[in-house]
Order: sequence, then C-alpha cells, then structure tokens
Amino acid sequence: MYRHVKNLQFESKPQKPDAVLAMKMQELVAGQFGEMTVMMQYLFQGWNCRIPGKYKDMILDIGTEEIGHVEMLSTMIARLLEGAPNETTEKAAAANPVLGAVLGGMNPQHAIVSGGGALPFNSQGVPWNTGYIVASGNLLTDFRSNVHAEAQSRLQTSRIYNMTDDPGVRDMLKFNLARDTFHQQQWLLGIEQLQEDGLADLIEDSNFENEDKIQDHTYWVFDETSAGPEGRWARGMTLVDEQEILVQNPPVPSEDTALLPPPDPKLYATYD
Amino acid sequence: MYRHVKNLQFESKPQKPDAVLAMKMQELVAGQFGEMTVMMQYLFQGWNCRIPGKYKDMILDIGTEEIGHVEMLSTMIARLLEGAPNETTEKAAAANPVLGAVLGGMNPQHAIVSGGGALPFNSQGVPWNTGYIVASGNLLTDFRSNVHAEAQSRLQTSRIYNMTDDPGVRDMLKFNLARDTFHQQQWLLGIEQLQEDGLADLIEDSNFENEDKIQDHTYWVFDETSAGPEGRWARGMTLVDEQEILVQNPPVPSEDTALLPPPDPKLYATYD
Amino acid sequence: MYRHVKNLQFESKPQKPDAVLAMKMQELVAGQFGEMTVMMQYLFQGWNCRIPGKYKDMILDIGTEEIGHVEMLSTMIARLLEGAPNETTEKAAAANPVLGAVLGGMNPQHAIVSGGGALPFNSQGVPWNTGYIVASGNLLTDFRSNVHAEAQSRLQTSRIYNMTDDPGVRDMLKFNLARDTFHQQQWLLGIEQLQEDGLADLIEDSNFENEDKIQDHTYWVFDETSAGPEGRWARGMTLVDEQEILVQNPPVPSEDTALLPPPDPKLYATYD
Amino acid sequence: MYRHVKNLQFESKPQKPDAVLAMKMQELVAGQFGEMTVMMQYLFQGWNCRIPGKYKDMILDIGTEEIGHVEMLSTMIARLLEGAPNETTEKAAAANPVLGAVLGGMNPQHAIVSGGGALPFNSQGVPWNTGYIVASGNLLTDFRSNVHAEAQSRLQTSRIYNMTDDPGVRDMLKFNLARDTFHQQQWLLGIEQLQEDGLADLIEDSNFENEDKIQDHTYWVFDETSAGPEGRWARGMTLVDEQEILVQNPPVPSEDTALLPPPDPKLYATYD
Amino acid sequence: MYRHVKNLQFESKPQKPDAVLAMKMQELVAGQFGEMTVMMQYLFQGWNCRIPGKYKDMILDIGTEEIGHVEMLSTMIARLLEGAPNETTEKAAAANPVLGAVLGGMNPQHAIVSGGGALPFNSQGVPWNTGYIVASGNLLTDFRSNVHAEAQSRLQTSRIYNMTDDPGVRDMLKFNLARDTFHQQQWLLGIEQLQEDGLADLIEDSNFENEDKIQDHTYWVFDETSAGPEGRWARGMTLVDEQEILVQNPPVPSEDTALLPPPDPKLYATYD
Amino acid sequence: MYRHVKNLQFESKPQKPDAVLAMKMQELVAGQFGEMTVMMQYLFQGWNCRIPGKYKDMILDIGTEEIGHVEMLSTMIARLLEGAPNETTEKAAAANPVLGAVLGGMNPQHAIVSGGGALPFNSQGVPWNTGYIVASGNLLTDFRSNVHAEAQSRLQTSRIYNMTDDPGVRDMLKFNLARDTFHQQQWLLGIEQLQEDGLADLIEDSNFENEDKIQDHTYWVFDETSAGPEGRWARGMTLVDEQEILVQNPPVPSEDTALLPPPDPKLYATYD
Ligand SMILES: [Ca+2]
Ligand SMILES: [Ca+2]
Ligand SMILES: [Ca+2]
Ligand SMILES: [Ca+2]
Ligand SMILES: [Ca+2]
Ligand SMILES: [Ca+2]
Repeated sequence: MYRHVKNLQFESKPQKPDAVLAMKMQELVAGQFGEMTVMMQYLFQGWNCRIPGKYKDMILDIGTEEIGHVEMLSTMIARLLEGAPNETTEKAAAANPVLGAVLGGMNPQHAIVSGGGALPFNSQGVPWNTGYIVASGNLLTDFRSNVHAEAQSRLQTSRIYNMTDDPGVRDMLKFNLARDTFHQQQWLLGIEQLQEDGLADLIEDSNFENEDKIQDHTYWVFDETSAGPEGRWARGMTLVDEQEILVQNPPVPSEDTALLPPPDPKLYATYD
Repeated sequence: MYRHVKNLQFESKPQKPDAVLAMKMQELVAGQFGEMTVMMQYLFQGWNCRIPGKYKDMILDIGTEEIGHVEMLSTMIARLLEGAPNETTEKAAAANPVLGAVLGGMNPQHAIVSGGGALPFNSQGVPWNTGYIVASGNLLTDFRSNVHAEAQSRLQTSRIYNMTDDPGVRDMLKFNLARDTFHQQQWLLGIEQLQEDGLADLIEDSNFENEDKIQDHTYWVFDETSAGPEGRWARGMTLVDEQEILVQNPPVPSEDTALLPPPDPKLYATYD
Repeated sequence: MYRHVKNLQFESKPQKPDAVLAMKMQELVAGQFGEMTVMMQYLFQGWNCRIPGKYKDMILDIGTEEIGHVEMLSTMIARLLEGAPNETTEKAAAANPVLGAVLGGMNPQHAIVSGGGALPFNSQGVPWNTGYIVASGNLLTDFRSNVHAEAQSRLQTSRIYNMTDDPGVRDMLKFNLARDTFHQQQWLLGIEQLQEDGLADLIEDSNFENEDKIQDHTYWVFDETSAGPEGRWARGMTLVDEQEILVQNPPVPSEDTALLPPPDPKLYATYD
Repeated sequence: MYRHVKNLQFESKPQKPDAVLAMKMQELVAGQFGEMTVMMQYLFQGWNCRIPGKYKDMILDIGTEEIGHVEMLSTMIARLLEGAPNETTEKAAAANPVLGAVLGGMNPQHAIVSGGGALPFNSQGVPWNTGYIVASGNLLTDFRSNVHAEAQSRLQTSRIYNMTDDPGVRDMLKFNLARDTFHQQQWLLGIEQLQEDGLADLIEDSNFENEDKIQDHTYWVFDETSAGPEGRWARGMTLVDEQEILVQNPPVPSEDTALLPPPDPKLYATYD
Repeated sequence: MYRHVKNLQFESKPQKPDAVLAMKMQELVAGQFGEMTVMMQYLFQGWNCRIPGKYKDMILDIGTEEIGHVEMLSTMIARLLEGAPNETTEKAAAANPVLGAVLGGMNPQHAIVSGGGALPFNSQGVPWNTGYIVASGNLLTDFRSNVHAEAQSRLQTSRIYNMTDDPGVRDMLKFNLARDTFHQQQWLLGIEQLQEDGLADLIEDSNFENEDKIQDHTYWVFDETSAGPEGRWARGMTLVDEQEILVQNPPVPSEDTALLPPPDPKLYATYD
Repeated sequence: MYRHVKNLQFESKPQKPDAVLAMKMQELVAGQFGEMTVMMQYLFQGWNCRIPGKYKDMILDIGTEEIGHVEMLSTMIARLLEGAPNETTEKAAAANPVLGAVLGGMNPQHAIVSGGGALPFNSQGVPWNTGYIVASGNLLTDFRSNVHAEAQSRLQTSRIYNMTDDPGVRDMLKFNLARDTFHQQQWLLGIEQLQEDGLADLIEDSNFENEDKIQDHTYWVFDETSAGPEGRWARGMTLVDEQEILVQNPPVPSEDTALLPPPDPKLYATYD
C-alpha cells in the first residue's frame, strides 16, 4: 500500500516559463528511459520478487522514490508551461520572430490535450507503454536492466541540462543527475551482493550445463576488414569459466541451407 | 553493405513439428528481447558509432551475426509448423483430446496470416517495435543496454529450453545459450576496454561536475520497515568517487508542495 | 449497410490556408478524443447492441453522423493545406521569418506522406488505434464512456477555437461545439431513459449482492494533510443504496504482507 | 513524494493456484480499464491540478489508493501462477486432458517473460499504454472520464468474478467491486461539488457563447427506419439551457460537396 | 455525409455458435488486412482525392461498402459468441474435454471486455491502428496499395473458409471472397483507367528525370550462389522505359566507408 | 547467414549539415514505407519462402540490399546532424531568426536520445513496428504488397527530393529513386514469372470454386449521384474469368437486419 506526502522530494521551480523546454522534458517523464519507466519497472520487479527481505525492500524503496520523480518532473513541466503562447501562429510570428520560434517548437498538445499540464507522452508525443519495462523474476538479469535504464536516463538528463540555463531547472536536474549516479551504482552493488549471497554469477547463466561449450567463448567475424578482433572481447580469458577466447574468421556456417518442406495445400503458400 | 550466405550459422531442424512450441519461440524472434531486438539495436549502434576502428567494427560484427539469428529462428518456426492442424476445433477435440490441446494452444495467425511461416510478432501476437531498442551514441551507456538485452534473452531461451525435449530444437538452443553467454561477456569486456582506453568510466557520468554532491551517495528509505539498508548498496563505499554511502531514513522532502500557478483562462483548466 | 451523400453535414471552408492550424486540427480527427474515436466507438456499440429498437437505432444514428464528422474535418484539413510551403527551410526562413515559423510548426508528413491531405494520425503524428474505444455490451457503462468522450472532445475543440480567427474555420467549430453539447446530453438522457425503462441504475452495479458492504461507502485517506475529506464525496449519503459515507483515516491495511511462495526452479527466479 | 507500507490494502490469497485465471486477471491489472489506468490517470490529474485544497487532495488520495490496487492484483497473479505447468504440451495433454486445457489456455509469457509473476500487459499480452488515460486540466471533463473508467473496470471485475469459485479470489474481487461502486459515486459527487462551488456546469460548455444555437438541441436521424426519435434524448427539454429538443429527419446537409482545390504539383497528387 | 440502412449487405447467420471461430474471425474485422483497414484506407483516399468525378466517387463507393463489411463481420462474431462458455476452466475441462479445448482456444476478452460482441482487435487481441493504412494523394500509388490489401484480405478469408464447415459462415465468406476478387480487379482496372486518361504510368515515376539512369534497370546480386538472375526480373527488357536489364554480380559498393565526423562534445557521444 | 562490407552501396555525403532535413529523412528510414519496412518485409518473405531456387534467392537478394539502404540513409542522417544546434531556443532565436526556425523544426530526440545519430523512428518520432509488414507465404499476394511498398516509398523519396537542393543529398536520392523504379518493376516481373511458371494467376484467387459467382463481377453503387459507374472498373469485361461487369444501383441489401440474440445474463449486457 502507498501513502502520499505533499512535499516534493526536491524543488521543481523554474525561474521562468519555457514552453519549448517543457516539450523536451517530456522525454524525462515518459520517454523510453523517462521516470515512468524506472518507476513501473522497479514496482513490478518488487511486487514479483519472491525472495523476502533486503532485496525486495530495496527494489520497492527505489520504486517508491521514482513515483515521486515522475511527480517532480510533471510539476516542473506544468510550471514551465505557465503563460505559454496559444495565439495564431502567423500573426504572432510576424510581430515577434522569437515568439515565432517558440510557437514552432512547442508541443500543441500541451495546450489542446493537457491544458497546460504534463502529458504522459515523450518529447515527440508518443505514448509511454509497458513494452519499455521488464520484471523477469531473476534478480541478476533485472539488475542488469536497471543499470542500463539509469545510465540511459542519466545521459538524457545530462544532455537536457546543457539545453537550458534556467537556474531553477538546473538545480532540479543536478539532483536527478546525482540520483542516477547513485542508482547506477546501487544496481551494480546489488549484483555484487547477489554474488556474495550465492544467488547469482556475474552473468545470466541458467541451464549453463546445457550450453554449447565452444560457442560460449568464440568471437565470430562477419566483415573481412573488421578490426573487431583487436579488442579485449576477442583476446584473453573469458570473465566466467576462464576460457581463452577464440576467433572464428571467416565465419563457417552449418550445412543447413534453410530449405523448407512443402506447405499444407490448404494454406495456399506458393509451391511448385 | 550486406551480403547473404544460404547456410545458416547453426542447424534449425526439429525432430518433429510442434505448433505450440512454434508459438512460444516467437518470443525469441520478435519479443521485447528477441533476436530482432539485438539485431536492430546493434546495427543502429554500429551505424551511429562515431569512433572508427575496433569498436564500430565489433558492434557491426555482432549486429550482422544477429541478422542470421533471426533467420535461424524463423527457419526453425517454419519447420515446427509443418503440418500444423487447421481443422475445425470442436470436431477435432472430440476425436482427439491431445489435438484439442494443441489447437487450443497454437497461434491461429500462424495459419491465417503467415501461411505456416514465422511471424514478426512475439508469442502473444504483439508486433515488434523500435521502442525496444536504443542507440545513444554513448558507448558505455549502450554497452550497458547490450549486457541487459543479452541477459534477458538468455534467460528466456533457457526457460523455453525446459519446455521441449525435441533434440533438434535443443541443439539449436544450446548454440543460442552459448552465444548469449559470450555476448554478455563481450559487452562487459567492451566496458573494460572503454575504461582502459580512457573513453569511459564504470558508470555514465557526463556533466559529473554539475551533479548534487550529497545525493550521489545517499540511499533513501521509503518504507518504515524496509530491510533495504542492510544491503551492500547502503553500506560501505560507492564504486566511483569513493564516498561512504549515507542512509536517509525517514525521507525528508523539500519545502515545495507542488502547488501550481493559476491557469491561462483560454485553456479552461479548473480554477477558483 | 451504409450509403454516402456528397454534401457535407456542415461547410468546411477556411478563408485561407494555414498549415500550422491543419497540424493542430489532426487532434480533432484522429486524436484520443477525435472524431474517429466517437465514430468507431458508437458503430461498434451499435453493432454489438443486443436490445432492438430505440437504443440500437439511436446509437447507430449518432455513429453514422460521426463518420460524416471525420469527413468534414478531413476536408477542412486538406483545404487548410493548400499551398503549404515545401521549400528548403533555412533559405526560406532567412528571407521571411514568418514563413520560418510556419515551416518550423507544420507537420512534414502533410507533405511527405499524404501529399496535402488529412492524415489518420493525431497532432503529433501518432496513429489512431482502437485501444481508445470501448463497446462493452452494457449500455449504462458505455453511455458513461460516451459522455466522457464528448466532453473531452468538446474541450479540445473549444481550445482550438481560440487558436484561430479564420471565420470559416470558426463557423465549422461552432457547429462542432454545438454537436458535442447536444451529444453529451444525449448520452446523459440515455442514462435517464435506461433507468426509466428499468434497464440500469445510476451506476454500474452488476453482481451488487456480492460486493463488500463497508468498502462501498468508505473514503480512504492516503495523505496525512489531505483536505479530501472536506468534499461532498466524503460527507453525507451515497447516491445509491443510501449509506452515510465513512472516512478511513489513517488507512488500515490487511495483515497480508505480499510475500510470495518459492518459485518453480525451472523458471530461474531468484530465491534463497 | 510517496511512501510504501508492506501490508496490502486487502488480502490477495487464492485458495489454490490457477494459471488460466491468472491470465484473465491481467485484464484487471493492465487492460484498457485495469488498475494501471486509473492509477496513472488520477496521478497525472492530481499532479496537473491547479486548484489547491480538497479537489487536488481527493484526486491524489484515490490515485495513491490505486497504486496499491495494482500491487494487490499483481500479488494475486503471482500467487495464482504458483506451480503453473511448463511441460511439453502434447505429452502432458495425452496424459491428462484437464492439464491440456490449462496448457492451452494459460499465457506462456507468464513463464517465459515474467518467470511466474504478473506482467504489465492485458489478458491478451498487449502492453499497457498512456493512450488509455487523460488529464485535461478541466475537472468536470476529467471527472466524467473517471466515472467511465470506474464503471468499465467494475463491469470487467464483475464478469471475472463469475469465472472463478475460488473463495480467496472472490473475497478480493468483492473488495474491488465495492471500491469501484464507491469510486463511481465519488466522481459523480465530485461533479455535484464542482457545480455547488460554481466551478462547472453539468456538461463541458466552455466557449458556450460561440456554439451554434440550433445544433445544440437537434437530434439528427440517419436511418429511415430509425426508432431513435422515440427516446428521451429526442423528446422534451435539454438538460442545460432548457430548450425543446428538435428532430432533423431526414438529414439536410450543407451545400458543400467537399471538392478540393488543385494540388501543389511538387507533391505529385493526382489531378487532371 | 453518411446514412445507415438496417439490412446487412449479406446475411451473417451461422448455423450454430462457435467461440473459437469467432476469435479467428477477428482477424477479418480488425487485423492488418481486416475490413477496418480497407474501410478507413478508402475513406481517407476518397476524402483526400483532389480530382472530382469518377475516381473520387468510385473510391468512396467502395469505402462506403466496406463500412458495411465491418458491420457484417461484427454481427457474425456476436452471433458466433452466443452461449460461449464462461465457466471455470479446470472443472469444465475435467467434465468435457471438447469444452476444455474450446475454453483453451477462445479469446477471454470476448467475455471480459465486449460482453459477447465483436472487438476492434485482431485474432490475437492487438488493437487496430492507422499505421496499417495509407492515402498519399497519388492515385496510382494508392491503387497499388489497394490491390495489395484486397489480395491479402482475400487470402486470409480463404484460409479461414477452410477452418469451418458451418454453412451459414461459409455462405458469408463466399460473398466476401467474391467481393475481394472483384475489388482486386477494380483497382487494377483503376490503374488501366489512370493510364488511359493520361494521369499515371504503370509505376510510380514522379521526378523521373532526376533518377539515376543505370540503377533503374540493374539487378544486384548479394549472394554468391543466388539463382535470382535466372528470373524474368533479371533478363529481358524493363516494363517502362524499355531498357535491357543489367545484372551487377558481385555487388560493387561506393568508396564511402560510412565514417562519421567527430561528435558535438555536449552530446557525450563516445569519441577518441 | 549475413556478412558486412564497410563500403556503402552508394555515397551518403551531404554538402553541409541540415538538421531539419535530417528530421524529414527519418520518414525514409523508419516510416510506414521506409527502408526498414522493405528490409524486414523481404527478409521474412525470403526466410518463409517454401519454394527453393530463383524466387527465394531473388527475394533475399533484394532483402539483403535493403539492409544496406537503411545503413546508407542512417549514415546520411548522422552526417546531416553534424553541429546541429542544441542551444536555448529563445536566446538563439532572438539573435538569429534563421536559427530559430531550424530549432523550431528539428527533432529534439536527435540530440536527447540518439546523440546526433539516426533514430529508428519516423519523421514524427513514431517507432517503427512490424504491423507495417507482411509475409503470407503466398508469393503473388506478397509481390502485390511489395509493388505497393516500393511505389509509396518512391513517392515519398521524390517529395523529399524537392525539399532540398543539397547536391550530395540529391545524388543519393537519385540512386534511391532509381532503385525504387527498378524494384517496382522487379515485383511486377515477378508476378509475370509466377504466371508463366503456372504458380499464380493475375490476382489472388485461392478457393476460387467457392466464391459467389455474381458478386465477383458486380460494382455496387452507394451514392445516388456517383460517377463511379463511368469508369473502366464498372464497364467491360473482368480481367480474370471474362465476365461482363454488372452494376448494382441502388444497392439491395439482404433480409438480415442484424438483430442479435439475447445475451448470457452472466455478462451483464443490456437486454429487456
Ligand atoms: Ca529517477
Ligand atoms: Ca542472438
Ligand atoms: Ca463529433
Ligand atoms: Ca481500483
Ligand atoms: Ca471487404
Ligand atoms: Ca530501398
């Protein structure tokens, strides 16, 4: 069960409105790596977690924090939209080229659909969907997903930071950058803890006994001039199972030329 | 530019058809973590890569391998669908309960839409979409995404392995498990290489100088009975920047109670 | 079966073209609450309606009217796009800042995809989909959905009305505002009629005998400082079943702490 | 900001697992009218609400409650999936026709993707998306949306109630039915309160002065044999503005035959 | 403007209900090539058509017919769902294996969501969306799209015809097969008419003067063992512009090795 | 299996960057008819093709070429984005109206999400999805789809050609126009070849013996003033089966008035 506290985790007060920035910040609310993604990903991971105690609680601690991040960013967007221009474009642009650029760049759904509030869509108006998230029941695998989500989210936050010089917006983004820095590490430390607790290896390796014992340490080259084999990934030992990495160059396929059997005539697939 | 070789990277020959398994294997072709995902993710990352040489080439080597994985799995599905029943369900089920279960479990689009071939949809018929993939231009961040995709993909492959005892299918899945084992490490080794080459740190930390210097090492607790603080993520030093992790319990929000300014009257948002 | 009449239900003639307004009006054609939504929602409700006579016929009368509304708005958009600029942006903007703003604000798909015609997408280019509509077979429930759709649609129309001063566009929007005013009431009157005919109560209450008899008149408070209990929704009698509304503050959860049983080992979910 | 309490708002303990029912209950988690829909709809409405006090707080009280409903239903699904069969379909069905039916009816993603936990998808595997929700800034309009969502949600809950006789599941659904009964009324009472406070009329009527004053009380007939005019919606006075409802039969369109001007030649639209 | 006639274009009466067939027939209503696709595609093409007279009218004649096809198929589905089982699966399957297979194969949304009516989703529950349709303003191009849609639609209808022996369903499908046969030819004859009227060539060739005059008649081979060059497409004359088709084997790429310039540092793309 | 060659099939070098054009060119990469569509459509058709030899090889030759087209266009977009402005909009626009227009028109995801590279989305930011493609197993039907895709793709390319005067971009587009000219014919020649080889007729006509023998040559008129019957599609002989085309005017529907049987009471559909 959840409870609400009116105060935001961090202040969301821009120095002045900026409708174009509001459009860009939608990416941080409801983009592929927006706060809605980490919020819903962690909540489902926490609810589905079958191991009681510190893991389940930690996942839900962060998931609960992320609800507040969506709230914080949505509040910022509503404030950035204060007094956004809704005038006839051409007339406005003739009178004021700066305003023309703003009108060209802002998202009209901020007026038409949400009436000056945040939208649950990304910066291009694409609805957020749960195809972005994952909760597999396997903590190592999901913590890898969480590291990636925080890294992508932090990168986007960092890029948007450079697109504004509003001190109020920047203060909030500094907070967000820091949380993403910490959360990346939190999930990496979670992986260390899983290993320490004997619950996982460095990589996902279920059914390990059944995997092909050559192909799990072979780098295949698919471009005659590839410099790929020069990297660490093609030289030295594997990280798990301590094998010398092999290089397959050129690629040697199987005998199977992918021919298919004749089709069921009732399906009218073409056949001779 | 790309070239095609008729032979598959590995054999895709089931011992006998199995329409219900074909339905499940669609998840590995075109699910959130199916081969289409890694194929398109690595191709876009490779094409967008601005650093010439071993990185760009390695990304495209694997991306090119993945095209062949979609081909391999699609071939398997077409073969598993050979002779799949297309009869009237009720009559068939009355005569043969086993057939009834198969008819209940198979995906009718395998007959109606693809005429006995693989579909570009997941096991529930949901179309694959590029909201699943990312190519950010930042290699550390993208390699984190790649580790996660390979881990989730391997886990799903491993689960499906347990759902069949067809030796032909299992042979192919052994190959896939091994490639996912290797590819997880390839991206982890890629991260090591980026660090060795001075191109990245362990985590995404662009604009590092601007982030909040307390919040980047503080664990917030949002549940009074949380065991979250017992984990490594809340004790000891951070992985980067060597700070002692702090615990914020209970959470202390800002002064900002998220009140919004009066709306533009022309938007008809409710206000007193 | 349907028939077509060439004449529009109302005139769709703008005084002059305006490509930026055309982009905004896509929201009224194919947005979440555009004419396509009410058209397809009412048609499916009418086709699925199992009660013959005035209800089925009324639903299909309005559904049929709405096909004509999509036609009317699409015609308007095609006319607004007449002579829309397709030039090189930078050069045009240098010569004419007004044109620059228009070029920045118009939707390039109006040129590239539809060749100057209406698109079946919203103002941000998102395809319309049937996830927006509902036809449940239960008329009370569906009429509640129809009231909501007409209300949201009217609000968006009203906002766009303020974004243009073209008298031709405004004339058509006046017609649309009026139809949405009437249609909101039509569905509210439909609910009155259902009650009068003994076919429904004020709210959806199927399986009423099985619902929890405390929780159907209790307001739960989830924020310590909530002013929520001051409203009519937390004081006085319920609208159905005449009960004094109770306030649960603070919230008292169940004993169930949501712990899950150990997982099936073949699924590789993490467990100790 | 949000806080978490481990205890569920209501118990989620089925008497025994039932994987087919788990599949159906996904509709209540992440269908068009699942708990995710009301949760995200109310949270965005609350965050965007510009009027402080009882309205904003009430919306967020319910929104916060709904987070807990997603949690409660997800927990139920994870428990229903305990020990779900993951065997080879054909062999299992031959041995046990009952199991065959279960295998045919369960969702394989519950094994392959979530490893025995709830999915953020509906009963057919379709991802939840924010195209289902709305937060317009206008409370009357949004409360209409909320009544509709609760009504549809309750109807689906009621139908699923009839599909199981598990007492544990039924107890939880009784709680849910009751909350949907109360919440429907809460939003209807919210509309009464808005009217009492002078903040809205019975229907959305912004820009009222500009709407066509005939078309706002005219029923159009589009089927020669329509019984539509027999209903209350076509007879008597309108609910607002007290006008006698008119009937337009047959429909009389405008003079505008929807012809379009010649196209820009650079767009290669067909023209004579 | 549109009008409705109660009578269906053709009878939609199954001899007896069949919930599994109802699920399959959803593909014909709202699949990628269902009746909704041709309906909305032709309506938008007709509304956007800028050439008055026989073309615009013909497109709208067929578009209007297709609205009636969605109605006809939706009616059939509602009738096939009469008395569909909604019981507890396991118990039902134990008592009756035939029923078990039906329960396994039917779509639960037919009960939960639509209450026994047609859904606006395909056979796998995926919502229909306007990404399936096109109206480009160019009639030759769009008629090519229409031929393709009718061909795919007819093929799916023909496959489903073989999945039932209900004489009522088969009668309706015979009608549909015939309409798809005629409509395929209608669009092919439309292309003949466009050529006869001097409005188009056999293929889309706008901006013809600017295209590369070698690459428009060269077949490229990308597989060393390709038998592709044996076909008519690689030998003889082109259909337009009368050129001898050339074969490029092996493929000879350009000098451009796709290297990209250094990135903007503010985007934190990886670079040396 | 696939292999990669670093050199592009054709040069992708713009004379100078142009972020607004980059946004538009996304339509050619990942729009409904972008290169991703033909790439994935042909690859799935080739992999699913059950007839060995020239057909399967030809389909895969073109499919493989199209992978290279996505690469070529993505490279172009990355180059067009070089040095794209990421500044604060308002300040920049005040200083430079031309820049203001560019800022208003460019896609912010090119900075925020891809860091200056191509996105797998269309010109409006909508993710590409496999609902755009088809592989039915029936070659005649699929070749019809392929003709249509190449025609739409060529039309869009031709329109964008007119939107730039950059000689480098135009050179690449000349190549693309030519390939689309050739590929349209390739699929038309494929249809000729299928007919010559006795594998298909001019149109999809499976189950031909079962179709209604009047409705396969009858044009129905649904608008009293329709000029539709004047066209070739309503006069003369059909293209297959040599029948004189009939005209049905006015439309005569069946006796079936679409009434539905009473509903299952457990579904709470409304009934008297
Ligand atoms: Ca966050
Ligand atoms: Ca792979
Ligand atoms: Ca309307
Ligand atoms: Ca609820
Ligand atoms: Ca049709
Ligand atoms: Ca191409």
